[in-house]
Amino acid sequence: MTRVFNFSAGPAALPEPVLRQAAEEMLDWRGSGMSVMEMSHRGKEFMSIHAQAEADLRELMAIPNNYKVLFLQGGGMGENAIVPMNLLGGKHCAKDGALNGTSRNVDFINTGEWSSRSIKEASKYAAVNVAASSEMNGYTHVPKQSSWRLDPNAAYVHICCNETIGGVEYHWTPDTAGVPLVADMSSSILSRPVDVSRYGLIYGGAQKNIGPAGLTIVIVREDLLGRALPITPSAFDYSLQAANDSMLNTPPTYGIYIAGLVFQWLKAQGGLPAMEARNRAKAALLYGCLDASELYTNPVAVEDRSLMNVPFFFKDTFFKDTFLKEASLNEAFLKGAEARGLYQLKGHRIVGGMRASIYNAMPLDGVQALVAYLKDFEASHV
Amino acid sequence: MTRVFNFSAGPAALPEPVLRQAAEEMLDWRGSGMSVMEMSHRGKEFMSIHAQAEADLRELMAIPNNYKVLFLQGGGMGENAIVPMNLLGGKHCAKDGALNGTSRNVDFINTGEWSSRSIKEASKYAAVNVAASSEMNGYTHVPKQSSWRLDPNAAYVHICCNETIGGVEYHWTPDTAGVPLVADMSSSILSRPVDVSRYGLIYGGAQKNIGPAGLTIVIVREDLLGRALPITPSAFDYSLQAANDSMLNTPPTYGIYIAGLVFQWLKAQGGLPAMEARNRAKAALLYGCLDASELYTNPVAVEDRSLMNVPFFFKDTFFKDTFLKEASLNEAFLKGAEARGLYQLKGHRIVGGMRASIYNAMPLDGVQALVAYLKDFEASHV
Repeated sequence: MTRVFNFSAGPAALPEPVLRQAAEEMLDWRGSGMSVMEMSHRGKEFMSIHAQAEADLRELMAIPNNYKVLFLQGGGMGENAIVPMNLLGGKHCAKDGALNGTSRNVDFINTGEWSSRSIKEASKYAAVNVAASSEMNGYTHVPKQSSWRLDPNAAYVHICCNETIGGVEYHWTPDTAGVPLVADMSSSILSRPVDVSRYGLIYGGAQKNIGPAGLTIVIVREDLLGRALPITPSAFDYSLQAANDSMLNTPPTYGIYIAGLVFQWLKAQGGLPAMEARNRAKAALLYGCLDASELYTNPVAVEDRSLMNVPFFFKDTFFKDTFLKEASLNEAFLKGAEARGLYQLKGHRIVGGMRASIYNAMPLDGVQALVAYLKDFEASHV
Repeated sequence: MTRVFNFSAGPAALPEPVLRQAAEEMLDWRGSGMSVMEMSHRGKEFMSIHAQAEADLRELMAIPNNYKVLFLQGGGMGENAIVPMNLLGGKHCAKDGALNGTSRNVDFINTGEWSSRSIKEASKYAAVNVAASSEMNGYTHVPKQSSWRLDPNAAYVHICCNETIGGVEYHWTPDTAGVPLVADMSSSILSRPVDVSRYGLIYGGAQKNIGPAGLTIVIVREDLLGRALPITPSAFDYSLQAANDSMLNTPPTYGIYIAGLVFQWLKAQGGLPAMEARNRAKAALLYGCLDASELYTNPVAVEDRSLMNVPFFFKDTFFKDTFLKEASLNEAFLKGAEARGLYQLKGHRIVGGMRASIYNAMPLDGVQALVAYLKDFEASHV
């Protein structure tokens, strides 16, 4: 068995010790005679797995007691609809479930593809105000807060903390003057400490920095519960799920188990401060290599560069001068990378180029191997 | 390692060869150097897993070409909302997403807890007509079709093919005179052949007869696409998902992989005709034991008994004469069962008593062991 270095943006690499433990426990979880996949979600065995996973996540992120942690389904794209469904109701919604003139506005900050999709989806349920956008600059930075035109009466302000495609990340927490801050943290959650108390709601698909695709994590302040629109499906109603410990319906049990193993691994690594130090070291190594190069370029403003997703382009490519060279170099680069065991470096189809996702589970070794390859490839192509 | 016989209603037992293969491939799927959990859903490795799973399911169920197969998230409870969202729109819905007077009616047949929940959920989006119900008889039979009061103008007719809690199953397919028939098959899918062409839409959570919780399967006739209400979340819009091979968002990749292994296992067993023969033999053995007993009783009309979920009660219990004896016998029964490696036999908390779920993955050995225990327990308690 040879494991590769997997730079996929998600589903993404998992820590090898987690996979080893999952393999060992597959047919018989700790003497229960059952796989975790086979356990009733209401049995004592799975209830203990679920409770431990929540407790470990609370410890890792220092989640205050007035926040609920929900393990749901639907992914980030599902949440783009489920969040407004859950936050725009209450007294502001007509009894027949119709959206009406009293629905409050929602503020969005548009920093890339995922923000854009969130805006489009929320527009089905809300009057969306784009309070700031970096679209005109090709989504290469986070708009400074001094430029945001926030509505003080908005139901909430939505940001995407890390744009997985563009490689743009908030390295600061916005001040929304008491309006609840909603954050899509799909691709940055658990990569470094955050002050949860600054957010009203945090959500994320698990498949980047937590575990398998299909598990979705929602961390919501209790005072934001009870505001669901009448059209909200019960399975996605935060209040109902919170009152039932995420077991109103059958939760994605195996995903919760794997996430729990990842949380244990993170604690053994030293928790989020240790992960931040490792992630900063990996990112510094990779960006340093790109910046010192004559062949590669990363277009993102230095202060807004993502620690998790590092897109890069061959210089000619980025300025769109020589498309033939783009195709030719991309293909040669990917082929040479795979020959060295460096996988899934192709950029997202929307923007092209290359992308290295270096989540928690990517070891420094992997980034070192990528940097060595970047240098060798440049030496033979410039 | 000792494996138990697991009678859980779901998540439920999986075939042991499937779990063995999953364990073996956990760190390195067929020389890829990656776990299936770590694969990009758009990479060639996972695309091949996904395509094979769909092809095998189509073969097993003989799904006609004019049906789409979708691998989604949200479970049966999610689908209870997602189905009406997807089938009640089109020209019948106002542009602002409001539900209005032109929404068509939906007919429901109420045969138990899951039908009831579907009705409650659909009522958020539709005008529900309960065309027949067995509620007055304690959900112990399927109402004969001659008693159904169907609306010829209904958008669709909804049935639950197998009530997991009540143990009531349709052993025939209703004739809805051209109105699309929607079937929740969560707990009976793949247990025997069905004529898919008689249904407009079939859905089911995977965690009973297919694979891990978190995967949801939808089989939908193509002419029913394009009818989504404007409030339908994109991640749950059948038309969008069908146009994107269930990859509009990241699908529950590991669940699809496990389901695919189960499909391969079913084919190796001889497909659904062979499974039906095995399931009928298992059910006959268990019901035969209950019917011959003076201690146990199953309240369901013989012709409507489920092949998958067999609830049973101690006779005193069922007639609610001696509640103390109920509690006492239940506890003693479960304790004795676990001592013999027979697990998760406790009935659903709503109805109490016992329940043995004997899905495809439960071998005849397991039912034989249960029957032996039932006889021994009766001999020592009557």
